[in-house]
Amino acid sequence: MDRTIRTEPLTAEAFARFGDVLEAAGAPDRTINEGLCGRFHDRARLDFGTGRAGISVFDAVPRHLPYDLTLVERHPGGSQAFLPMTAHPFLVIVAADEGGRPGRPRAFLSSGAQGINLHRGIWHGVLTPLAAPGLFAVVDRIGEGLNLEEYRYDAPWRVVRDGPA
Amino acid sequence: MDRTIRTEPLTAEAFARFGDVLEAAGAPDRTINEGLCGRFHDRARLDFGTGRAGISVFDAVPRHLPYDLTLVERHPGGSQAFLPMTAHPFLVIVAADEGGRPGRPRAFLSSGAQGINLHRGIWHGVLTPLAAPGLFAVVDRIGEGLNLEEYRYDAPWRVVRDGPA
Repeated sequence: MDRTIRTEPLTAEAFARFGDVLEAAGAPDRTINEGLCGRFHDRARLDFGTGRAGISVFDAVPRHLPYDLTLVERHPGGSQAFLPMTAHPFLVIVAADEGGRPGRPRAFLSSGAQGINLHRGIWHGVLTPLAAPGLFAVVDRIGEGLNLEEYRYDAPWRVVRDGPA
Repeated sequence: MDRTIRTEPLTAEAFARFGDVLEAAGAPDRTINEGLCGRFHDRARLDFGTGRAGISVFDAVPRHLPYDLTLVERHPGGSQAFLPMTAHPFLVIVAADEGGRPGRPRAFLSSGAQGINLHRGIWHGVLTPLAAPGLFAVVDRIGEGLNLEEYRYDAPWRVVRDGPA
């Protein structure tokens, strides 16, 4: 089996089965502040189950491509949004569920002006910034109960940057 | 009356009566992802009253200092977090309430690695980035009912950058 994963551009359409892309794309839903601010309104499907929303800050060590992936995880109890606090593109790895286990991963590369909201229960790689500082605001579930399931693939996947070799 | 407002550094302590500073300061509450990510956990006092949390994206025209301020607003129905999607410092203007009206404004300048969460009902200026793109993820109340109160000062305040003239 080919274990090479090529990065794809992060678009709302391609990402829809996994989550929401949070960006100022197209026309704003509203213009506020005397015309000086566009509001792209309520763009994330948030779901915190029996918990509540919280905002945390993540400070992650930057990775680089090619990137070897073995481990993915999911949060059965709630959605999780990653909002970069820099304009650096970051890597988003997700996988569809196949009977309780993650299938072949997909890897998306953000534009540098996008956040994401992973829907509840979606398999994903850990946070992988590609530049320092790897600083993100994270909106996820705060509450009791185990909210983490991990899966280790039998062999690593190699994520490479798409484009001319 | 002196109508000049000098910017102050945005620190958690100075800002505490208005809201939360969201930053990776000090030791993380947890280290996750096999030691590669610090989690500064649940740092915002969120309150959406009768509504729910939503994530929107704001794209605001950059302003510059000195900045003349006349209008402030508040949201009686919920807290509002501004999470910059760039590493540019931005201007945060707030005012304590004095019997139903805003008092003398204060102006904070972020470090470039900080978001804020305005507590429910705090008087504040509109979003004022100081560089392009003025891109922010905003976590605020989604729900029915009027959630905006505005106040126009009799005369403008002039916000100037603190430091040597």
